[in-house]
Amino acid sequence: MSKHAGLGLCSNREYTQPLRNNTRVVPMRVTGHVSSVVQALFAAAAKKNFNFQTNSTSLLSPHRFLNPLASGCLSVRRNSTNSAAPRKSKLPENWGTKKKSVIEEFKSKKKNKDVIYIMADNAEEILAPLRASVKEQGDLVRKLKEMGEGEIEVKKAVVELKARKKILEDKELELTQKDDGFDRMRMEDLLKRRFFYDQSFAIYGGVTGQYDFGPMGCATKANLLNFWRQFFVLEEGMLEVDCSILTPEPVLKASGHVDRFADLMVKDEKNGECFRLDHLIKATVEKIEKEKGTTAETKDRISTVLSQLDGYNKDQMAGLMAEFNVVSPVTGNPLSPPMEFNLMFSTQIGPSAAVKGFLRPETAQGIFVNFKRLLEFSSGKLPFAAAQIGNAFRNEISPRSGLLRVREFTMAEIEHFCDSSNMSHPKFCEVKDTLMTLYSACDQMDGKKPSQITISEAVGSGLVANETLGFFLVRIKMFLEKVGVNPDKLRFRQHLGNEMAHYARDCWDAEILTSYGWVECVGCADRSAFDLSQHTKATGVKLIAERRLPAPKKVEMMQANLNKATIGKAFKQNAKAIADYFANVDEEEIKKINDNLLSAGFVEIKIGENSFKITTEELKIEKVEKTIHVEEFVPNVIEPSFGIGRILYSIFEHNFKTRADDVQRTYLSLPPVIAPVKCSVLPLSNKAELQARVAEVVQELRKREVSVKVDDSSGSIGRRYARTDEIAIPFGITIDFETLNNSSVTLRERDSTLQVRLPIDKVGETLRDLSNGSLKWTEVMQVFPKFESQEA
Amino acid sequence: MSKHAGLGLCSNREYTQPLRNNTRVVPMRVTGHVSSVVQALFAAAAKKNFNFQTNSTSLLSPHRFLNPLASGCLSVRRNSTNSAAPRKSKLPENWGTKKKSVIEEFKSKKKNKDVIYIMADNAEEILAPLRASVKEQGDLVRKLKEMGEGEIEVKKAVVELKARKKILEDKELELTQKDDGFDRMRMEDLLKRRFFYDQSFAIYGGVTGQYDFGPMGCATKANLLNFWRQFFVLEEGMLEVDCSILTPEPVLKASGHVDRFADLMVKDEKNGECFRLDHLIKATVEKIEKEKGTTAETKDRISTVLSQLDGYNKDQMAGLMAEFNVVSPVTGNPLSPPMEFNLMFSTQIGPSAAVKGFLRPETAQGIFVNFKRLLEFSSGKLPFAAAQIGNAFRNEISPRSGLLRVREFTMAEIEHFCDSSNMSHPKFCEVKDTLMTLYSACDQMDGKKPSQITISEAVGSGLVANETLGFFLVRIKMFLEKVGVNPDKLRFRQHLGNEMAHYARDCWDAEILTSYGWVECVGCADRSAFDLSQHTKATGVKLIAERRLPAPKKVEMMQANLNKATIGKAFKQNAKAIADYFANVDEEEIKKINDNLLSAGFVEIKIGENSFKITTEELKIEKVEKTIHVEEFVPNVIEPSFGIGRILYSIFEHNFKTRADDVQRTYLSLPPVIAPVKCSVLPLSNKAELQARVAEVVQELRKREVSVKVDDSSGSIGRRYARTDEIAIPFGITIDFETLNNSSVTLRERDSTLQVRLPIDKVGETLRDLSNGSLKWTEVMQVFPKFESQEA
Repeated sequence: MSKHAGLGLCSNREYTQPLRNNTRVVPMRVTGHVSSVVQALFAAAAKKNFNFQTNSTSLLSPHRFLNPLASGCLSVRRNSTNSAAPRKSKLPENWGTKKKSVIEEFKSKKKNKDVIYIMADNAEEILAPLRASVKEQGDLVRKLKEMGEGEIEVKKAVVELKARKKILEDKELELTQKDDGFDRMRMEDLLKRRFFYDQSFAIYGGVTGQYDFGPMGCATKANLLNFWRQFFVLEEGMLEVDCSILTPEPVLKASGHVDRFADLMVKDEKNGECFRLDHLIKATVEKIEKEKGTTAETKDRISTVLSQLDGYNKDQMAGLMAEFNVVSPVTGNPLSPPMEFNLMFSTQIGPSAAVKGFLRPETAQGIFVNFKRLLEFSSGKLPFAAAQIGNAFRNEISPRSGLLRVREFTMAEIEHFCDSSNMSHPKFCEVKDTLMTLYSACDQMDGKKPSQITISEAVGSGLVANETLGFFLVRIKMFLEKVGVNPDKLRFRQHLGNEMAHYARDCWDAEILTSYGWVECVGCADRSAFDLSQHTKATGVKLIAERRLPAPKKVEMMQANLNKATIGKAFKQNAKAIADYFANVDEEEIKKINDNLLSAGFVEIKIGENSFKITTEELKIEKVEKTIHVEEFVPNVIEPSFGIGRILYSIFEHNFKTRADDVQRTYLSLPPVIAPVKCSVLPLSNKAELQARVAEVVQELRKREVSVKVDDSSGSIGRRYARTDEIAIPFGITIDFETLNNSSVTLRERDSTLQVRLPIDKVGETLRDLSNGSLKWTEVMQVFPKFESQEA
Repeated sequence: MSKHAGLGLCSNREYTQPLRNNTRVVPMRVTGHVSSVVQALFAAAAKKNFNFQTNSTSLLSPHRFLNPLASGCLSVRRNSTNSAAPRKSKLPENWGTKKKSVIEEFKSKKKNKDVIYIMADNAEEILAPLRASVKEQGDLVRKLKEMGEGEIEVKKAVVELKARKKILEDKELELTQKDDGFDRMRMEDLLKRRFFYDQSFAIYGGVTGQYDFGPMGCATKANLLNFWRQFFVLEEGMLEVDCSILTPEPVLKASGHVDRFADLMVKDEKNGECFRLDHLIKATVEKIEKEKGTTAETKDRISTVLSQLDGYNKDQMAGLMAEFNVVSPVTGNPLSPPMEFNLMFSTQIGPSAAVKGFLRPETAQGIFVNFKRLLEFSSGKLPFAAAQIGNAFRNEISPRSGLLRVREFTMAEIEHFCDSSNMSHPKFCEVKDTLMTLYSACDQMDGKKPSQITISEAVGSGLVANETLGFFLVRIKMFLEKVGVNPDKLRFRQHLGNEMAHYARDCWDAEILTSYGWVECVGCADRSAFDLSQHTKATGVKLIAERRLPAPKKVEMMQANLNKATIGKAFKQNAKAIADYFANVDEEEIKKINDNLLSAGFVEIKIGENSFKITTEELKIEKVEKTIHVEEFVPNVIEPSFGIGRILYSIFEHNFKTRADDVQRTYLSLPPVIAPVKCSVLPLSNKAELQARVAEVVQELRKREVSVKVDDSSGSIGRRYARTDEIAIPFGITIDFETLNNSSVTLRERDSTLQVRLPIDKVGETLRDLSNGSLKWTEVMQVFPKFESQEA
């Protein structure tokens, strides 16, 4: 994830915030190097799509650039589970009638329901000049870097590049999304009405940026996390940990969060309202730029300010406030001087308030500080991966847009520790042919679309830094598609050079297209040895591993030789402690001791509370030659980091559907594996005989850990199905009067609304396998006879 | 849980803290009403077992009273899963040899390994006078209450009662536990060495009261929580929610935590060290009491102080500090004046610091504030239960004793909402014959042991307040036993009258016996309508349900009748808002409006920012008779509340075992359902042919979601089993050279160390069913032939 990005070329001041705090609205000027046609287009696009107020509705990742539809202008949405390998049915071969037509009907129903994304015929015509404009600027950036131009010049050019990329991407989205038919208001109404999630503490007026998950949202989230654990932790044999949320200051000082996880803020001096300073200055000078009377000189000055906004420090920002008379855009009141606002929630640990602590802003640090224990658990062997699922907290200045930008959220992070001299991955060969939608830094700079290539090509060509990183990118893609992300709305975008942290080797974000644009949902970075090195520096505890040398090596070392007899006599009961001390002293310390011995003839050592004076009579430092078989190194880290709330939100969007035959009926087509409840049970009437069979079916299902919702209300079956469709229940069983005759029930599938008839004693196993994804509905339809007499 | 307890007779000042903060060391005086024999016994016991310093090692629940071994003086530990109903084996009937002797061997092995708790022959002789002494005091308390004695008199007597009960309980534990053979140091060494859990941020020096769960602890905890979800949420159809941790102040003000979840603190004026004031005063006056020169008058004064310590306010405490010259017990330095120390961690939400917030001290409030949404989700029907698993935080003054008292912990809470006029439970009949170890308030006051009675007897006699509460007590018992709590070390202790909150009807704690004594691990309270009423008071939002009246009822009501024509003319576009206002106004408000109309001829109403003056021409208030079919009521709450860390710790203790034939070999006999890893796979050698079969078996297992650990290190099989036993892996598969011949493998069970031979194609299903508890090892042994040639 990009949490330590932004420390490179583009920004020293601002600590680019990952996932939850990534509204870095890029400056959006249109000047210089652009042809007049392009300029006109830019201006129109800017007018239509942009809003640079502090409370802008933009909430995308800092990287909100290019084309979603990598596979071309016309693509049909695929069912996300289609790609899974087919599995032999466990059901009896000859029960019921095999009806091929049923399956065909199912397939055609699926197709008809799907949204088709069409890009207008003339789309590429419209986009061509915008692409050219991005490429023009991309080439300029490259040239400036090649020529070794000054940092400010390069920075200016990059800012311009980003602005052009944003215009291109917005235009692309505009051209593709208009046929989507997705209605966010309707979806949000459904999610709120059926209590998937809603604002926390609403009866107390609510708190922005905090959400409570209701029964359906909580179950979906729990299923998503369980599947994540299954897919990553169990499948790959990772070491899952569960670490503290309250974190003492020194830990986050070492990680860089205390100093850099902050924004500059100003306060309205009268009402105390807060504003993020860089946003405010930007909005102010842009307004001035547009005013009629503004001189060319001022416009030029503003252009410089905008291009350098990322690089100004606190004092320079204060200077700008005075220069442009920045006041509150809401009240016109004067503002306080700039102040650092750290985005971490702080508190005091313990009664004496001596220990300052923070709520962790990410879960990763808990893994790093436990590295030694985890390495030991792995018997000292690399590579190994540790994982953690847990809550993290960021005190957003103005949280908004539902689950996308909140103050309290669940993350799932993996730290894969490996030896940087060998970044191959034993399972890479299993995934090497996977086709990926990759949006390389280079393509971004050239105004091109993302391309679809296999991961082995990408690693082979050096586009993706190494096999291990490539392996994780594939696994992330597989995971997201299995939990319901539309593959056509998923891409992996590489960080540009200036987005990455200085120590990162390569970084890719899994971005998902939603109605808010492309949203960064998973980050996957090769973070080199940065994190472990930082904690070693802060604590003096070596966080290292050992690698076997190809051949034993002879090295010259200093060694402390104690004269045990004289030591024993001189220090008696302390002699052992002194011997232990010298047995564990490191190379550097020995050199110092030797210098002291040589110059003063003695050395004073401290063990616990006691000091001991050791003379040359008791201690000699000698050079010895030793053969070593291993060498120490700081492991490399590959970090896939998942924002669970964002993924969940994207899944809701991608699976919010309307019935073709009734626009009033909306439903959620969540894959069974994450659906909050797997099966509904609906008796046709409230008669006691039927109730007894309901109990029987429910018991069969619960015994196999299939979650069930019984709806014995008086509504029609069709109406009750509509209600269970809304909460994404993938399968429904109807108990009718025939059940009493032949112990069979109706089983209905949510997406196709097709039904089959199956015997009660098959219900348990069939539903268990359907629920965990090991059995497909098409297979069920091949085995059991179709049923048509009830409402669907 | 007892979180709101202690507001009753005994304590107004102190908010008794549940689970994580329950070291209420009871005053331990021996005076008055006690015969001289008993007095001598008391004195001896006190000398041996008690420590009343502030940093006392006591960390039990406030209720650390009586005898663990309810079933008598001699009892054999039962395997916790024995009680589950046997289930038909799914395995083929005729594969392998059925050997009865194998099963007998298994049973005898189990028996031999079990620890036998023996109470010394003369135990009851020793305990009899202590029991008599408790009863004597219990009778006194009853008598004082009957006679309507003053509160202080009763309080004094209760304090004395508690002191006597504590002495009795400690003596009982001393007499029973000495044969247990449990070695806490060895267990802690194992848990640390294999990284089940360890102190957080250890490389930074660590923080007390915070723990990180390593791979084995994390997996065990995750399995425990998943099983909890399965056992309570899915099985009972509860509504699980996942609410915010950061909680704004008004919510916790309403719940009582802001005002009362605090202790009085003093600080060493020189070094800032903090002390809990009541503990400190207690330690100080007790020291004075023991000094030689202390006068009878002072002793009497001290006796009064000790008995009233719970009831003193801040100023009175300050007075005591002056009176007894209380200084720091560590440095002798003077102390600050008393200050309230709230045990919640506070922080600021948002940038302007306008919203004060706390980390939630329990998860329950998140459910209460969502009551309306949850009731709606249940279609307005009661009863329903909501549940939540999540972290909570308490800023303990001096956390200690591993997972028992920490600052950050996981809870699982249930709020069962019901109609207090009908506390029956539809499933009570299914559990009514369950034998429970109940320790009634009455038995505690009589110095008796807990008794074993069925839950239907307990509810029938009124000992347990109602069926619903009784049903949950049984479910808690069943859950705890299934996850590995020793049934002989589990009891349900009823709160004494003065321990319960004034609004609570009944409250029972599931207490588990550990090497720290009896630890409160689950609370189960009938909390009446308190919580919902509090939030209604604070917000004005009615948190109510409706019950159908037995017969429709006619009532007289006031009704606002608007003259729509004149309203429309007078207020134009605001007319609708005004009409809406009067449509929603409540009975009480209407009365006020009517009074105004009658006296002044008009009324002024405020809608949003606007005021409107409405005259008698536009509005008439009339009495109407209405027929109502339902009435509103505030639901009753039954709250089972689980401390996950405490349960986990108790399970570790109860399942820490030593092999009878090798005291060096320790292992954890966790039930398969919560074991961190279900199966180990051990190839006999590193030959490639064997490795291929390892991969095959691993794939079979992972496909069925059975977690696996491969150990292909070079140690002997016996040594490798010893390692997997330490981390509680219940089953082990050995791949040997016979595997290559006939595709069979060895399967070993951890506790019995017995092995069978089974074909590879049976491995997946067999292990899946063994892991989820649906198949028993005894059943496996009946089907597959015993295997004896390898180390176990």
